Amino acid sequence: MGLKEVQDEVDKWISQYKIEYWKPHEILARLTEETGELAREINHIYGPKKKKSSEETKELSDEIADIIFTLSCLANSLNLNLDESFQRVMYKCYVRDNNRFEKK
Amino acid sequence: MGLKEVQDEVDKWISQYKIEYWKPHEILARLTEETGELAREINHIYGPKKKKSSEETKELSDEIADIIFTLSCLANSLNLNLDESFQRVMYKCYVRDNNRFEKK
Amino acid sequence: MGLKEVQDEVDKWISQYKIEYWKPHEILARLTEETGELAREINHIYGPKKKKSSEETKELSDEIADIIFTLSCLANSLNLNLDESFQRVMYKCYVRDNNRFEKK
Amino acid sequence: MGLKEVQDEVDKWISQYKIEYWKPHEILARLTEETGELAREINHIYGPKKKKSSEETKELSDEIADIIFTLSCLANSLNLNLDESFQRVMYKCYVRDNNRFEKK
Repeated sequence: MGLKEVQDEVDKWISQYKIEYWKPHEILARLTEETGELAREINHIYGPKKKKSSEETKELSDEIADIIFTLSCLANSLNLNLDESFQRVMYKCYVRDNNRFEKK
Repeated sequence: MGLKEVQDEVDKWISQYKIEYWKPHEILARLTEETGELAREINHIYGPKKKKSSEETKELSDEIADIIFTLSCLANSLNLNLDESFQRVMYKCYVRDNNRFEKK
Repeated sequence: MGLKEVQDEVDKWISQYKIEYWKPHEILARLTEETGELAREINHIYGPKKKKSSEETKELSDEIADIIFTLSCLANSLNLNLDESFQRVMYKCYVRDNNRFEKK
Repeated sequence: MGLKEVQDEVDKWISQYKIEYWKPHEILARLTEETGELAREINHIYGPKKKKSSEETKELSDEIADIIFTLSCLANSLNLNLDESFQRVMYKCYVRDNNRFEKK
């Protein structure tokens, strides 16, 4: 599945080294930092200053990938299976929110 | 690749409806909200109160998946390719950070 | 000064109890949680749903105060003087950013 | 009171210029960015790397003040009275949470 691949790729990189995953609170702090960088990018491109270019959209995309990298570290460090969780999230969308919006 | 599947699954769900993706700042606010829920879960399980159970770890995992759902919405709304970005992030890891930590 | 009063009021409340301030990472996680609640409120009032009432603005204001409470806990736990820091921030505004915007 | 002073000082600086406060979502994105900078500082000082000095604690304190500056902008832009909200927060502490922790 999709997210397993991502988690594995992060784990393969980390496992070359003698380091270990950080503690949950430390990874969360890193996540907060990365989310802040995405926020800066969004204000920069879509905010009060509004200058958009494809170069900047690429940076924004890379900030999202940085967040996913950090989330994968958290999941790996706690042996979490993100594909299972993502399937639960999608299931909730289809079941619980099925009539929440007007269908096409 | 991994994240394309995730993005496609989110888009398939959204595209049933007449709604559109929210604006970047609105999705960012949602991301901030979801990150807050993950933070609460982490403080609950690993923080000052420290009561851990497999049920709670499952919730933590689902909070991560909620964040990835939200990031996929942002990426889809802006036509971003997260697999490309994730590959750039991993490339940076292998190239730039190659000698940053002691190898096994 | 302004923020000293706020810090003192928080400390007076905490010091009734046998508890201590949490560790920096734990308070940061709490801050992330509170920021998420503010984000939800902002999306609720100014976001895609857009229903505004004075009751909701009051809740938004209280979410900001919750964040300031949490920041005061962090500052108190580390013996930080927020008035001094705030004066440095304002000084930077007046000096560094003095010609950044057009004056009236 | 304490926070009124802070709000007034921010407003005095802004009101020299022809600019206006940003929209709530834009200020929230800025808040997310500033919170990220605080998170980086906390990981730097108390995280996996652990090198603490008084210089760094000063920077951490200034990051908190940056957040309070941003929150004051949000409050000013929406005509919110943070002292009233802060008093409500403290009132909740004294009333609702009065027996939550063991007293000295």
